[in-house]
Amino acid sequence: MRLRVDLLPHGNYPDVVLVIDVLRATTTAVAYLERGADALLLTSSPEVALNLRSDNAESGLLLGGERGGLPIPGFDFGNSPVEAAAQNFTGKTVVMNTTNGTGAAHTAAQTGKHILLAALTNAHAAARRARAIATEEIALVCAGTDERVSLEDVYAAGVLAEYLLAMGEFTIDDGARIALTMRRNAGNPIEALGSAGHGARLASLGLGEDVRYAAQLSTSTLVPTLADSSDVAGALRFVAG
Amino acid sequence: MRLRVDLLPHGNYPDVVLVIDVLRATTTAVAYLERGADALLLTSSPEVALNLRSDNAESGLLLGGERGGLPIPGFDFGNSPVEAAAQNFTGKTVVMNTTNGTGAAHTAAQTGKHILLAALTNAHAAARRARAIATEEIALVCAGTDERVSLEDVYAAGVLAEYLLAMGEFTIDDGARIALTMRRNAGNPIEALGSAGHGARLASLGLGEDVRYAAQLSTSTLVPTLADSSDVAGALRFVAG
Repeated sequence: MRLRVDLLPHGNYPDVVLVIDVLRATTTAVAYLERGADALLLTSSPEVALNLRSDNAESGLLLGGERGGLPIPGFDFGNSPVEAAAQNFTGKTVVMNTTNGTGAAHTAAQTGKHILLAALTNAHAAARRARAIATEEIALVCAGTDERVSLEDVYAAGVLAEYLLAMGEFTIDDGARIALTMRRNAGNPIEALGSAGHGARLASLGLGEDVRYAAQLSTSTLVPTLADSSDVAGALRFVAG
Repeated sequence: MRLRVDLLPHGNYPDVVLVIDVLRATTTAVAYLERGADALLLTSSPEVALNLRSDNAESGLLLGGERGGLPIPGFDFGNSPVEAAAQNFTGKTVVMNTTNGTGAAHTAAQTGKHILLAALTNAHAAARRARAIATEEIALVCAGTDERVSLEDVYAAGVLAEYLLAMGEFTIDDGARIALTMRRNAGNPIEALGSAGHGARLASLGLGEDVRYAAQLSTSTLVPTLADSSDVAGALRFVAG
């Protein structure tokens, strides 16, 4: 079995893909499902999200997302896991669009057989699920920030890689070696996320609570999983797995 | 002053760029200049290199390069620093084309003001030169391998970053933080290059001597430097700096 870590989304995934955007899209996605959401629709743009709601006015879709860390006009929620964890989404579908994470999921879905969303908060469950369904390769795909590598995503990939290596035999690539080195030498999760440029930027926007929330390790067993038949145009439908 | 490390070529460089392709293009480029070459012409494709020679039959151009680690038909030399170091190139111009390094140099040259080639072998000299000429940013650009991040380039970026941080004040990005962590925790240069996927591949091709050559730290003071007026179509002209 191959373990591959892409420090930025690359494409050409033959098997299982775990998309990682710790600050904050995949952390928030896990929080929505923890708080009872039926499904998440990850769109390729804010416009697709707004059109989805106007085309389905009766369905009570909620919109969550950000651009540059800030809320999107017309959306109900930012991209905050703390905000998500404080609400009840039972029976609701949340449409998500974010700067980096939702795009990475779309890149992954172009070729991958199984697409999961991973964060530090669900890292152990995500690794276990990936190991159970993979037949040839597990790709850990770091979303990054504006096409630049993000330390927090690489660190989380290292956490996932460490779990996976404890579960079985893998051949690993340079990306995995780098991620494992970061995991083992960049401190604990709160130290790693605090040292990352995007962590500092969120703190400067008053969103330091989100950074601390995202640094929790394996506190959830929910793994957002791309549903086989994506029945919504321009959006990927993830459900609790 | 900003210190930026791109783990893969990204573009948009406002100031000084150090292009890093440790295995093997930039290491070999330094070796050609050490052995007396007047200039290096880095082309965007093997075809441009072959055309340069046929269009300048009287000039005695030499061609060096590789695809997938192997020599290119019609070229005089592979991309081997050991081979380069064993010859005398006094008065010669070498045309280079390689899988990753020459493309990264072309990306850098699209916007950068000053383009230098860096390897472990000239790391200290390259850092010192960059520091002397930079006015706002030094970008360390890892060439990678086939659009994937290469451990050896990230490690070398960490070596350069460590030298630079000893020379002055910089704000650093996540790429620099990752590179510094690799430099400090991935062993000495021979260990780091030996653990890299591309190092193992070269060893399996019988090119382990090149890997050991490339792991030498700051043994040369030559820094290949893009000449102000590139007078050759489709090629970047580097001279000893």
